[in-house]
Amino acid sequence: MSITFTVIKKDSSCCARLGLLHTPHGTVETPIFMPVGTQATVKTMAPEEVRDVGGRLILSNTYHLYLRPGYELVREAGGLHRFMNWGGPILTDSGGFQVFSLGPLREVAEEGVTFRSHIDGSKHFFSPEKAMEVQMALGSDIAMAFDECVPYPCSWDYAREATERTSRWARRCLAAHSRDGQVVFGIVQGSVFAELREKSALELVDLNFPGYAIGGLSVGEPKDIMYKMLDFTVPFLPGEKPRYLMGVGSPDCLVEGVIRGIDMFDCVLPTRMARNGAVLTRRGKLVVRNAEYARDFTPLDPDCDCYACRHYTRAYIRHLIKAGEVLGIRLTTIHNLRFVLKLMEEIREAIRHGTILDYRDKFLKEYQGPQAQ
Amino acid sequence: MSITFTVIKKDSSCCARLGLLHTPHGTVETPIFMPVGTQATVKTMAPEEVRDVGGRLILSNTYHLYLRPGYELVREAGGLHRFMNWGGPILTDSGGFQVFSLGPLREVAEEGVTFRSHIDGSKHFFSPEKAMEVQMALGSDIAMAFDECVPYPCSWDYAREATERTSRWARRCLAAHSRDGQVVFGIVQGSVFAELREKSALELVDLNFPGYAIGGLSVGEPKDIMYKMLDFTVPFLPGEKPRYLMGVGSPDCLVEGVIRGIDMFDCVLPTRMARNGAVLTRRGKLVVRNAEYARDFTPLDPDCDCYACRHYTRAYIRHLIKAGEVLGIRLTTIHNLRFVLKLMEEIREAIRHGTILDYRDKFLKEYQGPQAQ
Repeated sequence: MSITFTVIKKDSSCCARLGLLHTPHGTVETPIFMPVGTQATVKTMAPEEVRDVGGRLILSNTYHLYLRPGYELVREAGGLHRFMNWGGPILTDSGGFQVFSLGPLREVAEEGVTFRSHIDGSKHFFSPEKAMEVQMALGSDIAMAFDECVPYPCSWDYAREATERTSRWARRCLAAHSRDGQVVFGIVQGSVFAELREKSALELVDLNFPGYAIGGLSVGEPKDIMYKMLDFTVPFLPGEKPRYLMGVGSPDCLVEGVIRGIDMFDCVLPTRMARNGAVLTRRGKLVVRNAEYARDFTPLDPDCDCYACRHYTRAYIRHLIKAGEVLGIRLTTIHNLRFVLKLMEEIREAIRHGTILDYRDKFLKEYQGPQAQ
Repeated sequence: MSITFTVIKKDSSCCARLGLLHTPHGTVETPIFMPVGTQATVKTMAPEEVRDVGGRLILSNTYHLYLRPGYELVREAGGLHRFMNWGGPILTDSGGFQVFSLGPLREVAEEGVTFRSHIDGSKHFFSPEKAMEVQMALGSDIAMAFDECVPYPCSWDYAREATERTSRWARRCLAAHSRDGQVVFGIVQGSVFAELREKSALELVDLNFPGYAIGGLSVGEPKDIMYKMLDFTVPFLPGEKPRYLMGVGSPDCLVEGVIRGIDMFDCVLPTRMARNGAVLTRRGKLVVRNAEYARDFTPLDPDCDCYACRHYTRAYIRHLIKAGEVLGIRLTTIHNLRFVLKLMEEIREAIRHGTILDYRDKFLKEYQGPQAQ
């Protein structure tokens, strides 16, 4: 069995849609946010807790797992699901984004990328074939093609070169991939250039991937440019296949992305923010580690149903974080993931009822309003 | 309602006994090991997890909570139970041990101890009266008298001086204490000198505390000296009151302590060891972060029923610890606490069946045996 996708409802006034993504490890409803488990664990959380906050499909990281503990080890362990005790579906990114983020530590050629480990400086080589080999060993449900992700801003020439290489590499990924029960999604690149986005989308669609990601956004460009790129790119992608916007997870972008036809998202924002002592609330971001919350005996977010909000006060969580206690960032992580996953539940509900545009307006008004705490 | 203690069975061949300690937050069976929640949290764990591994009575720390977040703040929060969401009983130590551990950062006088905070160097003063005031604000079920704990080795003269001061301070603690539903335990000192231990015990028993701790052991002296001190001291303590051996938690010492008549123990050993990547097993200590466990796909301890051992391998836990992932030390902490708390369950069961000496021999043979992993 492999991945299939069913669109069960389309909104009549925008591109939002409700779908079902069927995987060997269960069916998930879309639009979905995927918690990030970079190193085979969603930071600070146990798998049951990820499930409790509403996590269904998690993302893990080829580059990190390749370096540590090593993909052969994960294969010996029976694959990533078993290694980390996660029974639900897993998507692995290809390592492209991480390798290209290494800057001076890597060298790009047509064959692939030579890079040095951020852990010990050791030299490694990643190619489309290698990225497939590693992801086949990990045994994720969805593997990602090995792409070249360019920074923002980026020259037209370099963006074109990277986009063309991404298409050639995509072809090599498909040729190298041969694992039943795992599919490969293609990644559309093209920086902020409409012409390149179109070219990339058309070339990838030609390869008939079972799903498409939009990569290279949320890398520093203004949000309105990201939205324009989505408006422009999505129509080139086949309507019957899932669309995944990579690395996007701030609440406003999730809502805006869904409206533009995105089915899947991932981002470290909620979990990373949590470890910095900040939380998402209906009224915007709240830095609970700030002194003003020292004697605040109310929950992180009075509207939230998560474990942290049901049992603990801002004062206690602030104390834990100031004292360097792990439970502090466990609680903020639980809260932030629950916040984003509940937002996705509400988004799906709004699409179901045909009210997603109203929902967007209402949500953003409160979230971005002047009374943000 | 306050603390009462019932001895329900005494072993006929040694001093071990089974008891029930009734507190305003529930009744617990003794002998008991108390997980340590220094800063109002058992490091890395949520309260439900502490309960799941068998934790019933936890210890928290007056010195640490006085400095951060401050005892008035905990009082405002509704007391320590509510602040940290722990529904079971809590024992707070007096801060004596911590203050005396500060070395050059403190100055002792008859009135009390002037010390500097290990966090920011600020100057503070602790006295028996202050230690009571803070613990009354925290609202623990059992408060500890403010004592002078001497290091090992220690001269007879200094040990005598500290022991005498501990008795005078004990009297002041009782005079200053006035919180319903909270009791104060006295602490026997006297270093490794039998004469001073006797003197300390007799003077404190004279004050009629509802429970007695033996302090100043497990501070560096050889274990056989600790055992001799217990053999010598316990007979001076009233049989109908609980006896608490402070700071002791290695598995062999727990068994040996119970046999010598101890009802309560606390120690950071299981939780601290866990954070260093080492675990307790029936066959001794296992340093799971070592390279030899990289491809070991068996549980931490095949005989253990804890969450970590039911779901994860040594290879995975080692990976998490090497990668700096919090879940790694969460799992080793869960395991180590479960190990010690299950040991206490087995100890109570053995006392119930009159087989505690056999249990001791069998346990120690395996735990200290040559096949220790």
